[in-house]
Amino acid sequence: MAVRWELLKQDPASAARLGRLHTPHGVIETPVFMPVGTQATVKTLNPEEVWDLGARIILSNTYHLYLRPGHDLVQEAGGLHRFMNWKGAVLTDSGGFQVFSLADLRKITEEGVQFRSHIDGSTHFLTPEKATEIQNALGADIIMAFDECTPWPCDHDYARRSLERTTRWAARCKVAHARPEAQALFGIVQGSTFADLRRQAAEEIVELDFPGYGIGGLSVGEPKELMHEMLEVQVPLLPADRPRYLMGVGSPEDLVESVWRGVDMFDCVLPTRIARHGTVFLPDGKMTVRNAEFARDFLPIQEGCDCYACRNYSRAYIRHLMKADEMLGLRLCSIHNLRFLVRTMEEIRAALAAGTFAEYRRTFLERWHAGEAERRARIRTGTGRAGGPMGPSEPAVPQNR
Amino acid sequence: MAVRWELLKQDPASAARLGRLHTPHGVIETPVFMPVGTQATVKTLNPEEVWDLGARIILSNTYHLYLRPGHDLVQEAGGLHRFMNWKGAVLTDSGGFQVFSLADLRKITEEGVQFRSHIDGSTHFLTPEKATEIQNALGADIIMAFDECTPWPCDHDYARRSLERTTRWAARCKVAHARPEAQALFGIVQGSTFADLRRQAAEEIVELDFPGYGIGGLSVGEPKELMHEMLEVQVPLLPADRPRYLMGVGSPEDLVESVWRGVDMFDCVLPTRIARHGTVFLPDGKMTVRNAEFARDFLPIQEGCDCYACRNYSRAYIRHLMKADEMLGLRLCSIHNLRFLVRTMEEIRAALAAGTFAEYRRTFLERWHAGEAERRARIRTGTGRAGGPMGPSEPAVPQNR
Repeated sequence: MAVRWELLKQDPASAARLGRLHTPHGVIETPVFMPVGTQATVKTLNPEEVWDLGARIILSNTYHLYLRPGHDLVQEAGGLHRFMNWKGAVLTDSGGFQVFSLADLRKITEEGVQFRSHIDGSTHFLTPEKATEIQNALGADIIMAFDECTPWPCDHDYARRSLERTTRWAARCKVAHARPEAQALFGIVQGSTFADLRRQAAEEIVELDFPGYGIGGLSVGEPKELMHEMLEVQVPLLPADRPRYLMGVGSPEDLVESVWRGVDMFDCVLPTRIARHGTVFLPDGKMTVRNAEFARDFLPIQEGCDCYACRNYSRAYIRHLMKADEMLGLRLCSIHNLRFLVRTMEEIRAALAAGTFAEYRRTFLERWHAGEAERRARIRTGTGRAGGPMGPSEPAVPQNR
Repeated sequence: MAVRWELLKQDPASAARLGRLHTPHGVIETPVFMPVGTQATVKTLNPEEVWDLGARIILSNTYHLYLRPGHDLVQEAGGLHRFMNWKGAVLTDSGGFQVFSLADLRKITEEGVQFRSHIDGSTHFLTPEKATEIQNALGADIIMAFDECTPWPCDHDYARRSLERTTRWAARCKVAHARPEAQALFGIVQGSTFADLRRQAAEEIVELDFPGYGIGGLSVGEPKELMHEMLEVQVPLLPADRPRYLMGVGSPEDLVESVWRGVDMFDCVLPTRIARHGTVFLPDGKMTVRNAEFARDFLPIQEGCDCYACRNYSRAYIRHLMKADEMLGLRLCSIHNLRFLVRTMEEIRAALAAGTFAEYRRTFLERWHAGEAERRARIRTGTGRAGGPMGPSEPAVPQNR
């Protein structure tokens, strides 16, 4: 078996678990956040920077690497780890999420999905077998079954038919998987925001017996309460001795809330995506360091933060870099945001080990929500210069894979 | 005196000198190439990367920092070194080159230059006194006199009147300089491509007695032979015990040729600018790693190169990053190009110490010119895919400050 998850401690107060994921590229403490390196690079960072901020597993993407540079080329290079010079573990998403995001550009059949490349418009056909073959060539430690990620909202009938197809596709992926001794294939449970379908999906996919399970189709626009409810319905149906990976999540509060509900693994583009706008995580919510109010602020992004950016640079300097379109600004914000999430997971693991996770969660969320509420109030009332604390160009950020 | 240059060895075969520049931020071996960090950051790199590639002095820019973030803000931050977290030495250009490049946006009088900001169109007035005041606030180890850099070609009469004004401005900079104990003010000699004016400029500026001399107005489009000729005329008129800095130069062959003619210091945006197009320096000329021919090339950019990029990544990976618009590609090409120039200077210094510089120069230039001639032939005949070896988007790269 390529990967093995070891339960170290079940939190008595919640569904949270402390564990250890053994992979061909090292041991990963869980719960864990995985930085996203969609195109075989975590945006703006080199692998040493990613390692130095504490990450030991990253995510990369089948859809993108299949189209460019091509999985055969990556295989020829010696696989993804060697191609990108990353000594830690890698998980590849199956490409399902991406092709279904293409909306007008794709057509679904029982066999698979026909889609057009976002790069050059060329036509491709992705099937469970093809997605698995690509992932076998890329060589990640963990690969994902080819699933349909339903949009939200979605009607019950479509969600049911989709999840049943996803189950049939998962079975085909398992058959197609050529390197089970070197790579672990995780199944993915869907079911939209319907409790009965979440149960059905869990039962069907668990029946196929995977070494780990992805939870898909959440954090796609639905209210947070609904996401929590679905986790509470579905997670208990997943085997206690296998890792659970909530795909495309998330924000700091989502990590804490989902660990509480029994999730072990996460990934999200949020930390690097908001960095592009100079937005950074703080314990009391997000802050946009690009804003005029920080022009002469010589404090670090977050006082006491142990990241490279906070140890060496002021808000004023980082704001200058962002205003001047200098890439180092984006790097520094990305490093801070990734370190913030990785450190949050370290804190969560320490709290689980100490038996204080309930207290940690309460304190963390109180501080975070109070700060975010204040920030939203400032944006609403127009307080703060340059279009409010998030800046004029800050779009709503979808939290996705 | 803020800086002192020490002659270690005069090359017997040429005008080249081996030396040591003592500054408030460390000792710099000369001849030296200074990476350019126009906006208080060497594009895409952090200061540790710049240090690790062997640079001990960088250049930054008065015009850009005056407009954004403002010299008063940089001073408030504790000066340029601290603002950008650079432990080595810094030289700031006076802004003269930039305001004169604005062409339609500026108006020259005896008092100074009125110009409009390229950022927001606001009107500013830069004088020798103001340029010096700004540089005193920025706090670089070496600051430059405010000069007019004449374009090429330029008529004799204009070039003469301009250089005489530059001399009067240099005298005013000297009077205005408020921190001679902490910062060294270098004069700048101009004179376009007229031998008599180059002589006149050298005599006038040397008469003012500066601790070092910039040579301006070269590598602005004139034939290389003319640049060499002007150096041969002007350099011997500069005092033998002061460093000579050829501004905005250069390419690898320009460095070798100009050291031969007695130049000690260089800066140029070329290595980071061509990196944007995926173009890299090799001992036998430039190569565009972004080109299709390198898609499956798993060699490093330059075999045997000791830079971070060549020690860890293949051409195929770097090409992938450039094609996918991933910033790490630009970083890796920038690191290679800067290391290539810094290492060339190390080799030149070693050759000067060993008394073999004439041989080094011959071998270096033979290899470089043969490779470049071949590359130009390939472009002319359309050999090589994707629009020839330089790629379709490669513009003529002006080598300037």
